[in-house]
Amino acid sequence: MGAKATFFLFFTFFALCSSFPVERNYVPCKHLVLFFHDIIYNGRNALNATSAIVAAPQGANLTKLANIFHFGNLVVFDDPVTLDNNLQSEPVGRAQGFYIYDSRNTFSACLGFTFVLNSTHHEGTITLAGADPTLKKTRDISVTGGTGDFFMHRGIATIMTDAFEGEVYFRLRVEIKFYECW
Amino acid sequence: MGAKATFFLFFTFFALCSSFPVERNYVPCKHLVLFFHDIIYNGRNALNATSAIVAAPQGANLTKLANIFHFGNLVVFDDPVTLDNNLQSEPVGRAQGFYIYDSRNTFSACLGFTFVLNSTHHEGTITLAGADPTLKKTRDISVTGGTGDFFMHRGIATIMTDAFEGEVYFRLRVEIKFYECW
Amino acid sequence: MGAKATFFLFFTFFALCSSFPVERNYVPCKHLVLFFHDIIYNGRNALNATSAIVAAPQGANLTKLANIFHFGNLVVFDDPVTLDNNLQSEPVGRAQGFYIYDSRNTFSACLGFTFVLNSTHHEGTITLAGADPTLKKTRDISVTGGTGDFFMHRGIATIMTDAFEGEVYFRLRVEIKFYECW
Repeated sequence: MGAKATFFLFFTFFALCSSFPVERNYVPCKHLVLFFHDIIYNGRNALNATSAIVAAPQGANLTKLANIFHFGNLVVFDDPVTLDNNLQSEPVGRAQGFYIYDSRNTFSACLGFTFVLNSTHHEGTITLAGADPTLKKTRDISVTGGTGDFFMHRGIATIMTDAFEGEVYFRLRVEIKFYECW
Repeated sequence: MGAKATFFLFFTFFALCSSFPVERNYVPCKHLVLFFHDIIYNGRNALNATSAIVAAPQGANLTKLANIFHFGNLVVFDDPVTLDNNLQSEPVGRAQGFYIYDSRNTFSACLGFTFVLNSTHHEGTITLAGADPTLKKTRDISVTGGTGDFFMHRGIATIMTDAFEGEVYFRLRVEIKFYECW
Repeated sequence: MGAKATFFLFFTFFALCSSFPVERNYVPCKHLVLFFHDIIYNGRNALNATSAIVAAPQGANLTKLANIFHFGNLVVFDDPVTLDNNLQSEPVGRAQGFYIYDSRNTFSACLGFTFVLNSTHHEGTITLAGADPTLKKTRDISVTGGTGDFFMHRGIATIMTDAFEGEVYFRLRVEIKFYECW
């Protein structure tokens, strides 16, 4: 076989290969750990509160989470995001969105929110959605999209309750593993 | 090296290349049919209800769906999921989330929910979002993400109203076709 | 050509192939500009209104957006969609979904909605989610899925406030850039 044929083959293979679409990666192509801090308005903490109950089932009110696993409460939040578990650390952005307690048999919420990051490290948004059964040690939700530094990204976020104080404060640790990075 | 060996190599390379992960597939790579059952709280069925109205437009209340195509009602649900259309069948998980009636000209809702599956067949979550014009025989919404057995999956879900009784009970048949499976 | 050269080529091709990750396209594969028009119900405009406040924080009501940057207001909408900025133009579909004002320091909302398009140009749905800091000239949200003509599409939508009149009317210009088209 001559060099000519070899090069012909080379370019044929090259063309075939380069027309192949996408390689899926089971190792995260990007990885991020964020903490966010939620202080629910209870009628007496207006200055510190970062979230508020805005809908409740019949018979409940907007300053106390409802009975029966808070079923039916819609909470809106605008929580500071930090890189470690300290509420006083310099925030790198906000977690903005809502959760709706949607179980009558356990504590579980439907989560929909966006990390709006704005720091020297990251500039962009990460949008997440999924089910959050809050009593489980870890739970996975979907990263459905992103913008800026996270343009078109997708992935999985693993959530842990890092701390909580009664029904007023909780802190979540969110480990975001992107598997589609662009 | 002979032509035979060259062709052997050619096909080896070709096979290697073409075995690389992803190619867009217009035939579903995974397929699932699920039913879920929604019983709306009406003030008298607390024991059976699986969902509740938690927000309503001005002048409406939380135990009866609003006039004008229920526009403005936010309903939170935690519905049993079965593999057939029988409410008494062994549930394989829950459908948890919300719908918001969002049309003043027809019955239509904005749907956001997660199938939380936990059975011998499936373990994981599937998150869906989209518009549900409930009077159409079938309507398509997006599968925006998944975890566990449905890690990073995307697809389309075709929804049919399989049965309903007045404004209190309905059953949806959801045919999920995944086109991105990982 | 000797065996050595052949193997060299083999590994070169192999490396080339396996390094061909993704054929991702940073130029949109589809592009769309849509306008939508939102008229919030204020207790006196029932005939014209296209949206309504259905949840509010403690102390606020459903006919006036709440103080402190409307934090906690959930608004449901069913807005006409046009191809230009004229509310009287022939609509090509509806934008249906919700926004939740979720900041106490600026005007910002969590957006979740679907374009339901039904015209000679487009037939299908586009589902979007993300953070909308409404005072910024442009802001990006994620296109998380689509159906019909937009089957499995993903992308980025750039939103601009094209006009507004007090707290009752606003018009958004949405430039949708799909980067994953199928």
